Amino acid sequence: MAQTLQTTVKMIGRYLEDFAVGQAFGSGRIRIDVERIKSFAAEFDPQQFHLDEKAAHDSVYRELAASGWHTAALTMRLLVESELKPAGGIVGTGFDAFRWPRPVRPGDELHVESEVLEVRSSKSRPDLGLIKARTTTLNQDGEAVQISIGNLLVPRRPA
Amino acid sequence: MAQTLQTTVKMIGRYLEDFAVGQAFGSGRIRIDVERIKSFAAEFDPQQFHLDEKAAHDSVYRELAASGWHTAALTMRLLVESELKPAGGIVGTGFDAFRWPRPVRPGDELHVESEVLEVRSSKSRPDLGLIKARTTTLNQDGEAVQISIGNLLVPRRPA
Repeated sequence: MAQTLQTTVKMIGRYLEDFAVGQAFGSGRIRIDVERIKSFAAEFDPQQFHLDEKAAHDSVYRELAASGWHTAALTMRLLVESELKPAGGIVGTGFDAFRWPRPVRPGDELHVESEVLEVRSSKSRPDLGLIKARTTTLNQDGEAVQISIGNLLVPRRPA
Repeated sequence: MAQTLQTTVKMIGRYLEDFAVGQAFGSGRIRIDVERIKSFAAEFDPQQFHLDEKAAHDSVYRELAASGWHTAALTMRLLVESELKPAGGIVGTGFDAFRWPRPVRPGDELHVESEVLEVRSSKSRPDLGLIKARTTTLNQDGEAVQISIGNLLVPRRPA
Protein backbone atom coordinates (compact mmCIF):
# COMPACT_ATOMS: atom_id res chain seq x y z
CA MET A 1 0.00 0.00 0.00
CA ALA A 2 2.82 2.36 0.93
CA GLN A 3 4.54 1.23 -2.25
CA THR A 4 1.45 2.02 -4.33
CA LEU A 5 1.11 5.48 -2.79
CA GLN A 6 4.79 6.22 -3.40
CA THR A 7 4.45 5.15 -7.03
CA THR A 8 1.46 7.43 -7.48
CA VAL A 9 3.31 10.39 -5.99
CA LYS A 10 6.23 9.74 -8.32
CA MET A 11 3.96 9.75 -11.34
CA ILE A 12 1.69 12.69 -10.67
CA GLY A 13 3.40 14.53 -7.85
CA ARG A 14 2.13 15.96 -4.59
CA TYR A 15 -0.80 18.33 -4.40
CA LEU A 16 -1.07 21.11 -1.83
CA GLU A 17 -3.07 18.77 0.41
CA ASP A 18 -0.15 16.32 0.47
CA PHE A 19 2.28 18.84 2.01
CA ALA A 20 2.54 19.55 5.72
CA VAL A 21 4.78 21.73 7.86
CA GLY A 22 7.83 19.79 9.03
CA GLN A 23 8.06 17.38 6.09
CA ALA A 24 11.65 16.90 4.97
CA PHE A 25 13.00 15.76 1.62
CA GLY A 26 16.51 14.66 0.72
CA SER A 27 18.20 14.36 -2.66
CA GLY A 28 20.82 12.50 -4.62
CA ARG A 29 24.37 13.81 -4.94
CA ILE A 30 26.16 15.62 -7.72
CA ARG A 31 29.87 16.36 -8.11
CA ILE A 32 31.13 19.66 -9.50
CA ASP A 33 34.35 19.51 -11.47
CA VAL A 34 36.88 22.19 -12.26
CA GLU A 35 36.27 22.26 -16.02
CA ARG A 36 32.53 22.87 -15.62
CA ILE A 37 33.18 25.51 -12.93
CA LYS A 38 35.32 27.40 -15.46
CA SER A 39 33.04 26.94 -18.49
CA PHE A 40 29.92 27.93 -16.52
CA ALA A 41 31.75 31.04 -15.29
CA ALA A 42 33.00 31.89 -18.79
CA GLU A 43 29.38 32.02 -20.00
CA PHE A 44 27.59 33.51 -17.00
CA ASP A 45 29.99 34.90 -14.38
CA PRO A 46 33.29 35.74 -16.08
CA GLN A 47 35.30 36.85 -13.05
CA GLN A 48 38.89 35.77 -12.52
CA PHE A 49 38.31 33.95 -9.21
CA HIS A 50 35.93 31.55 -11.01
CA LEU A 51 38.23 31.08 -14.03
CA ASP A 52 41.84 30.99 -12.92
CA GLU A 53 43.49 29.31 -9.92
CA LYS A 54 46.21 31.92 -9.52
CA ALA A 55 43.84 34.88 -9.62
CA ALA A 56 41.56 33.08 -7.16
CA HIS A 57 44.48 32.70 -4.77
CA ASP A 58 44.87 36.48 -4.65
CA SER A 59 41.10 37.08 -4.20
CA VAL A 60 38.75 36.96 -1.21
CA TYR A 61 38.06 33.30 -2.11
CA ARG A 62 41.76 32.24 -1.73
CA GLU A 63 41.14 29.23 -4.03
CA LEU A 64 39.13 28.66 -7.20
CA ALA A 65 35.43 28.87 -6.32
CA ALA A 66 32.31 28.02 -8.33
CA SER A 67 29.98 30.86 -9.25
CA GLY A 68 27.13 31.03 -6.74
CA TRP A 69 24.80 30.76 -9.74
CA HIS A 70 26.39 27.44 -10.64
CA THR A 71 25.69 26.24 -7.10
CA ALA A 72 22.12 27.55 -7.39
CA ALA A 73 21.59 25.81 -10.74
CA LEU A 74 22.95 22.48 -9.44
CA THR A 75 20.73 22.84 -6.37
CA MET A 76 17.75 23.12 -8.72
CA ARG A 77 18.84 19.97 -10.56
CA LEU A 78 19.02 18.10 -7.25
CA LEU A 79 15.61 19.46 -6.18
CA VAL A 80 13.94 18.45 -9.46
CA GLU A 81 15.21 14.90 -8.96
CA SER A 82 14.40 14.82 -5.24
CA GLU A 83 11.26 13.39 -3.63
CA LEU A 84 9.74 16.89 -3.21
CA LYS A 85 7.88 16.51 -6.53
CA PRO A 86 5.00 19.00 -6.41
CA ALA A 87 2.26 18.19 -8.94
CA GLY A 88 2.77 20.53 -11.85
CA GLY A 89 6.52 20.78 -11.22
CA ILE A 90 8.74 23.00 -9.11
CA VAL A 91 7.48 26.50 -9.88
CA GLY A 92 9.24 29.02 -7.69
CA THR A 93 7.96 32.56 -7.30
CA GLY A 94 11.00 33.76 -5.38
CA PHE A 95 12.84 33.73 -2.08
CA ASP A 96 12.46 35.43 1.29
CA ALA A 97 16.15 34.79 2.00
CA PHE A 98 19.02 33.38 0.02
CA ARG A 99 22.67 33.14 0.97
CA TRP A 100 25.92 31.39 0.19
CA PRO A 101 27.66 30.86 3.56
CA ARG A 102 30.77 29.28 2.02
CA PRO A 103 32.24 28.74 -1.44
CA VAL A 104 31.94 25.57 -3.53
CA ARG A 105 35.31 24.15 -4.61
CA PRO A 106 36.32 21.88 -7.50
CA GLY A 107 35.49 18.27 -6.66
CA ASP A 108 32.85 19.11 -4.05
CA GLU A 109 29.90 16.70 -3.97
CA LEU A 110 26.61 18.45 -3.22
CA HIS A 111 23.24 17.31 -1.96
CA VAL A 112 20.18 19.16 -0.70
CA GLU A 113 17.83 18.91 2.26
CA SER A 114 14.45 20.65 2.10
CA GLU A 115 11.98 21.27 4.87
CA VAL A 116 8.42 22.54 4.52
CA LEU A 117 7.93 25.64 6.71
CA GLU A 118 4.45 26.76 5.65
CA VAL A 119 1.50 25.53 3.56
CA ARG A 120 -1.23 27.94 2.55
CA SER A 121 -4.00 28.53 0.01
CA SER A 122 -3.74 31.22 -2.62
CA LYS A 123 -6.12 34.15 -2.10
CA SER A 124 -6.35 34.97 -5.81
CA ARG A 125 -6.28 31.47 -7.34
CA PRO A 126 -8.60 28.86 -5.75
CA ASP A 127 -6.90 26.07 -7.74
CA LEU A 128 -3.44 26.88 -6.34
CA GLY A 129 -1.60 27.14 -3.06
CA LEU A 130 1.85 28.05 -1.87
CA ILE A 131 4.40 26.23 0.17
CA LYS A 132 7.37 27.88 1.82
CA ALA A 133 10.44 25.66 2.13
CA ARG A 134 13.96 25.99 3.47
CA THR A 135 16.45 24.33 1.13
CA THR A 136 20.01 23.78 2.31
CA THR A 137 22.73 22.68 -0.11
CA LEU A 138 25.53 20.81 1.65
CA ASN A 139 28.97 19.67 0.59
CA GLN A 140 30.57 16.27 1.27
CA ASP A 141 31.66 17.48 4.72
CA GLY A 142 28.10 18.41 5.68
CA GLU A 143 28.85 22.15 5.47
CA ALA A 144 26.11 24.41 4.11
CA VAL A 145 27.10 26.14 0.86
CA GLN A 146 23.67 27.61 0.06
CA ILE A 147 20.62 28.24 2.24
CA SER A 148 17.37 29.55 0.82
CA ILE A 149 13.82 30.09 1.99
CA GLY A 150 11.66 29.98 -1.09
CA ASN A 151 8.03 29.97 -2.15
CA LEU A 152 6.59 27.41 -4.56
CA LEU A 153 3.26 27.37 -6.37
CA VAL A 154 1.50 24.03 -5.87
CA PRO A 155 -1.87 22.99 -7.38
CA ARG A 156 -4.70 21.89 -5.11
CA ARG A 157 -6.02 18.39 -5.68
CA PRO A 158 -8.78 18.58 -8.30
CA ALA A 159 -12.25 18.06 -6.80
CA MET B 1 39.46 64.75 -15.46
CA ALA B 2 36.12 62.93 -15.46
CA GLN B 3 37.48 60.81 -18.30
CA THR B 4 40.59 59.97 -16.28
CA LEU B 5 38.54 59.01 -13.23
CA GLN B 6 36.25 56.84 -15.36
CA THR B 7 39.25 55.09 -16.89
CA THR B 8 40.69 54.41 -13.44
CA VAL B 9 37.39 52.96 -12.20
CA LYS B 10 37.23 50.69 -15.25
CA MET B 11 40.70 49.35 -14.56
CA ILE B 12 40.66 48.80 -10.82
CA GLY B 13 37.01 49.09 -9.90
CA ARG B 14 35.20 51.02 -7.20
CA TYR B 15 36.12 50.81 -3.54
CA LEU B 16 33.56 51.09 -0.75
CA GLU B 17 34.27 54.83 -0.54
CA ASP B 18 33.23 55.25 -4.20
CA PHE B 19 29.69 53.93 -3.59
CA ALA B 20 26.82 56.06 -2.31
CA VAL B 21 23.13 55.45 -1.71
CA GLY B 22 21.09 56.31 -4.79
CA GLN B 23 23.75 55.59 -7.41
CA ALA B 24 22.31 53.72 -10.38
CA PHE B 25 24.06 51.51 -12.92
CA GLY B 26 22.76 50.22 -16.24
CA SER B 27 23.98 47.34 -18.42
CA GLY B 28 24.22 46.08 -21.94
CA ARG B 29 21.63 43.75 -23.42
CA ILE B 30 21.59 40.02 -23.99
CA ARG B 31 19.13 37.91 -26.00
CA ILE B 32 17.99 34.49 -24.84
CA ASP B 33 17.23 31.96 -27.56
CA VAL B 34 15.07 28.87 -27.50
CA GLU B 35 17.90 26.38 -27.99
CA ARG B 36 19.88 27.68 -25.00
CA ILE B 37 16.69 27.79 -22.87
CA LYS B 38 16.25 24.07 -23.56
CA SER B 39 19.91 23.05 -23.16
CA PHE B 40 20.29 25.01 -19.90
CA ALA B 41 17.13 23.37 -18.59
CA ALA B 42 18.28 19.91 -19.68
CA GLU B 43 21.40 20.31 -17.53
CA PHE B 44 20.05 22.22 -14.53
CA ASP B 45 16.24 22.37 -14.46
CA PRO B 46 14.88 19.42 -16.46
CA GLN B 47 11.17 20.18 -16.22
CA GLN B 48 8.87 19.85 -19.20
CA PHE B 49 7.75 23.51 -19.29
CA HIS B 50 11.39 24.54 -19.90
CA LEU B 51 12.03 21.81 -22.49
CA ASP B 52 8.97 21.32 -24.64
CA GLU B 53 6.55 23.83 -26.17
CA LYS B 54 3.53 21.55 -25.98
CA ALA B 55 4.06 20.60 -22.35
CA ALA B 56 4.62 24.28 -21.53
CA HIS B 57 1.26 25.12 -23.11
CA ASP B 58 -0.48 22.82 -20.63
CA SER B 59 1.47 24.19 -17.64
CA VAL B 60 1.11 27.26 -15.43
CA TYR B 61 3.52 29.08 -17.81
CA ARG B 62 1.24 28.57 -20.88
CA GLU B 63 4.27 28.95 -23.22
CA LEU B 64 7.88 27.79 -23.10
CA ALA B 65 9.65 29.67 -20.30
CA ALA B 66 13.31 29.91 -19.36
CA SER B 67 14.40 28.44 -16.04
CA GLY B 68 14.55 31.18 -13.42
CA TRP B 69 18.16 30.08 -12.85
CA HIS B 70 18.94 30.81 -16.48
CA THR B 71 17.52 34.32 -15.98
CA ALA B 72 19.56 34.67 -12.79
CA ALA B 73 22.76 33.51 -14.51
CA LEU B 74 22.26 35.91 -17.44
CA THR B 75 21.57 38.71 -14.96
CA MET B 76 24.96 37.98 -13.40
CA ARG B 77 26.62 38.14 -16.82
CA LEU B 78 25.04 41.55 -17.43
CA LEU B 79 26.08 42.77 -13.96
CA VAL B 80 29.69 41.66 -14.40
CA GLU B 81 29.86 43.64 -17.64
CA SER B 82 27.98 46.66 -16.22
CA GLU B 83 29.53 49.81 -14.78
CA LEU B 84 28.93 48.60 -11.19
CA LYS B 85 32.48 47.16 -11.07
CA PRO B 86 33.36 46.84 -7.39
CA ALA B 87 37.13 46.54 -6.80
CA GLY B 88 37.83 42.86 -6.22
CA GLY B 89 34.85 41.77 -8.33
CA ILE B 90 31.18 41.14 -7.68
CA VAL B 91 31.20 38.99 -4.54
CA GLY B 92 27.66 38.39 -3.34
CA THR B 93 26.94 37.03 0.11
CA GLY B 94 23.24 36.57 -0.55
CA PHE B 95 19.88 38.24 -0.96
CA ASP B 96 17.28 39.75 1.35
CA ALA B 97 14.63 39.28 -1.34
CA PHE B 98 14.57 37.62 -4.73
CA ARG B 99 11.64 37.08 -7.06
CA TRP B 100 10.66 36.34 -10.62
CA PRO B 101 7.52 38.41 -11.30
CA ARG B 102 7.07 37.09 -14.84
CA PRO B 103 8.58 34.41 -17.08
CA VAL B 104 11.34 34.93 -19.66
CA ARG B 105 10.37 33.74 -23.14
CA PRO B 106 12.44 32.64 -26.15
CA GLY B 107 13.79 35.69 -27.95
CA ASP B 108 13.50 38.05 -24.99
CA GLU B 109 16.27 40.64 -24.74
CA LEU B 110 17.28 41.36 -21.15
CA HIS B 111 19.09 44.20 -19.44
CA VAL B 112 19.59 45.16 -15.79
CA GLU B 113 19.29 48.28 -13.68
CA SER B 114 20.95 48.39 -10.27
CA GLU B 115 20.54 50.93 -7.50
CA VAL B 116 22.63 51.24 -4.36
CA LEU B 117 20.37 51.12 -1.26
CA GLU B 118 22.92 51.02 1.54
CA VAL B 119 26.69 51.35 2.08
CA ARG B 120 28.26 50.21 5.32
CA SER B 121 31.51 49.09 6.92
CA SER B 122 32.07 45.51 8.00
CA LYS B 123 32.23 45.01 11.77
CA SER B 124 34.47 41.96 11.56
CA ARG B 125 36.73 42.93 8.64
CA PRO B 126 38.18 46.47 8.70
CA ASP B 127 39.42 46.09 5.11
CA LEU B 128 35.92 45.32 3.77
CA GLY B 129 32.47 46.84 3.58
CA LEU B 130 29.08 45.85 2.27
CA ILE B 131 26.74 47.44 -0.18
CA LYS B 132 23.09 46.51 -0.56
CA ALA B 133 21.69 46.93 -4.07
CA ARG B 134 18.39 46.37 -5.80
CA THR B 135 18.89 44.78 -9.21
CA THR B 136 16.00 44.60 -11.63
CA THR B 137 16.21 42.53 -14.81
CA LEU B 138 13.92 43.84 -17.54
CA ASN B 139 12.78 42.47 -20.88
CA GLN B 140 12.56 44.38 -24.18
CA ASP B 141 9.11 45.71 -23.16
CA GLY B 142 10.48 47.18 -19.93
CA GLU B 143 8.74 44.53 -17.82
CA ALA B 144 10.59 43.24 -14.75
CA VAL B 145 11.42 39.52 -14.97
CA GLN B 146 13.65 39.36 -11.87
CA ILE B 147 13.98 41.67 -8.87
CA SER B 148 16.56 41.09 -6.16
CA ILE B 149 17.91 42.93 -3.15
CA GLY B 150 21.41 41.61 -2.61
CA ASN B 151 24.48 42.21 -0.49
CA LEU B 152 27.96 42.56 -1.97
CA LEU B 153 31.36 42.53 -0.27
CA VAL B 154 33.44 45.52 -1.37
CA PRO B 155 37.02 46.30 -0.28
CA ARG B 156 37.80 49.63 1.36
CA ARG B 157 40.36 51.81 -0.40
CA PRO B 158 43.82 50.83 0.88
CA ALA B 159 45.31 53.49 3.17
